[in-house]
Amino acid sequence: MRKIYDVFLAYNEPKAEAFIEKLRGKRPLFVCTLGTTETAKIPGISVAGKNPEFTDYTPPADAELLLLGKCKCIPVVPVTPEGIPTPALITMSALKIADIPTLVVSGGLRVKPHIPLLDLGGNPGGDIRKGRAVESVGEVIQRARTAGENLAKTADYIVIGESIPGGTTTALGVLLAMGIDARGKISSSMPGNPHELKTETVKAGLRASGEEFGSLAEDPIKAISYLGDPMMPAFAGLVLGAATKVPVLMAGGTQMGAVLAVVKALNWHVLDNLAIGTTRWIIADKTSDLRGIIAQIADVPILAADLDFSRSKFAGLRAYEEKVVKEGVGAGGAAIAAMIKSGGSITRETLLKEIERNYEHLVRPE
Amino acid sequence: MRKIYDVFLAYNEPKAEAFIEKLRGKRPLFVCTLGTTETAKIPGISVAGKNPEFTDYTPPADAELLLLGKCKCIPVVPVTPEGIPTPALITMSALKIADIPTLVVSGGLRVKPHIPLLDLGGNPGGDIRKGRAVESVGEVIQRARTAGENLAKTADYIVIGESIPGGTTTALGVLLAMGIDARGKISSSMPGNPHELKTETVKAGLRASGEEFGSLAEDPIKAISYLGDPMMPAFAGLVLGAATKVPVLMAGGTQMGAVLAVVKALNWHVLDNLAIGTTRWIIADKTSDLRGIIAQIADVPILAADLDFSRSKFAGLRAYEEKVVKEGVGAGGAAIAAMIKSGGSITRETLLKEIERNYEHLVRPE
Repeated sequence: MRKIYDVFLAYNEPKAEAFIEKLRGKRPLFVCTLGTTETAKIPGISVAGKNPEFTDYTPPADAELLLLGKCKCIPVVPVTPEGIPTPALITMSALKIADIPTLVVSGGLRVKPHIPLLDLGGNPGGDIRKGRAVESVGEVIQRARTAGENLAKTADYIVIGESIPGGTTTALGVLLAMGIDARGKISSSMPGNPHELKTETVKAGLRASGEEFGSLAEDPIKAISYLGDPMMPAFAGLVLGAATKVPVLMAGGTQMGAVLAVVKALNWHVLDNLAIGTTRWIIADKTSDLRGIIAQIADVPILAADLDFSRSKFAGLRAYEEKVVKEGVGAGGAAIAAMIKSGGSITRETLLKEIERNYEHLVRPE
Repeated sequence: MRKIYDVFLAYNEPKAEAFIEKLRGKRPLFVCTLGTTETAKIPGISVAGKNPEFTDYTPPADAELLLLGKCKCIPVVPVTPEGIPTPALITMSALKIADIPTLVVSGGLRVKPHIPLLDLGGNPGGDIRKGRAVESVGEVIQRARTAGENLAKTADYIVIGESIPGGTTTALGVLLAMGIDARGKISSSMPGNPHELKTETVKAGLRASGEEFGSLAEDPIKAISYLGDPMMPAFAGLVLGAATKVPVLMAGGTQMGAVLAVVKALNWHVLDNLAIGTTRWIIADKTSDLRGIIAQIADVPILAADLDFSRSKFAGLRAYEEKVVKEGVGAGGAAIAAMIKSGGSITRETLLKEIERNYEHLVRPE
């Protein structure tokens, strides 16, 4: 795969290259959209499954890490049971060394972070097995669109990331309801990627809401309302508002497929101003297929930060190479923006050094 | 008084001119800070006094007007009992014709607007006569500072306005507690400017909190906590965070004195990056004395938009010339930013035309 700086042109190469050209020398704004959902508390769905209530704390803790450089709502940085630190550590390190301004947006949270938080009037999400997942989807999209329109006047381009435990399952729900065959293609932060459990969960949701594969292809609002999560209307609305004016890098893994499908159904004119920004770990993952999802939706390029932690001095970071935790909190997109903004002087090596510095300071204070 | 474009150099002329030079050709961001307080419900304190609960709706309605071009939480644009429309109409018109991005921040609101709202964790304010006016002042200032630091990376300068009914009384409270003699100098949107009622209200608050004139000169957090309002920590924190990096135009009338005193006490280094932006009506008002307040605090310039509605075809707008409603929702600062951003092609005449167009559409649909 060809690289520009340490960014792979991972899919749709000519468009990927053109997108990077558009961002060169420009000023980004990073926006992190948060949400929590009861779906994450289904046993086996999320890495925080052993202690389901903990999933309510991960997004606010991630956001605090981005804005404050430390967590406040919990005493430590979120870490999986295997000892892998939240990808917010990558995001935070990239934003810091590249001096990228950051805004945190809530789509619906049970626990509020101790930071300035752009509220869109949304509520935490329900269990999709009941077929009633998200309230006020249309209103949240509308408010997010207003925010996106205004933010687009403050930056040359916008990078949007997300933090929502259980988000790949709800992404599968929206994708299937909208007729995109994402079975077996969705990523996971769980060892072994429990595709079957996710598919069963979504099937229960489809049954409960009286829908089936593809029946909501033309109705993204209902698809989110029944089978999605509260991050989605916030993220999609921001894209819809901003991308009419400036390029938007949608920073995430396979969840970006669901957001992209929603955006396309609501205004396909903005697709030309979009790219997906992710990590090498997502592209290299054999248990999921981001390109196979995006190819079914739109002719949008994928960029992937060439992050390589195999030589890190910390086992917790080397664990990223086992492709369990692979992406999240816009880690790939933030790294890409940092590399492009610095004109390539921020490399995967300098970024890893910064990440190690922050890891040492935050995760293992001795 | 000398003018640059249609902006008076109303105080501290050389610094006022230098400040305008700094903003020339630059990109502003407009931030509107909101709050509500029980103090506004004291009979005679606010123009909405006849129906005290209505004061809870004015800030959210103002903010909706700025972002959506119409109000949603109430069916009409806020208008005083005399038929004078909210100055948010001026602000909205200026932001619109100059295409200035806008962000709305809550310091503490009883009624939430139907828009994206940057929440700082603050609560609505209490009646200052009880000497317990605002909760979590330090925490809100800290969150606002974080927001200001990030916003300063997205714009060349920041214009901050406010909407809080009863705000001039709480401003008097903070000013007196901090030892600035603002008696008889504070503005009002009430016909006849009830200085005596305001002074009595503040005296009751000083008694209840065990403080006296000047006793909190070194403790702005306590001054706000006991005698202020929830807009103040949001506004002051934003200034503190942003003005270390970019110029900040503090858009308002005599209330800006209280915010400036707080900012100065917390970090006087930022004073060089500040100006007050207001309207000609505030400068011309014989019942208040903005310059006399600011002169006691800091060597900060005052700019005043030369708004003149005397020839408006609408009585509701001509009423601004009676100097009852004179400022609010950052009207003066937004007008100044629009004039400077346009290099003078937006004049008081073009702005009035836009205001009349919006007035006709929104206030008197026939």
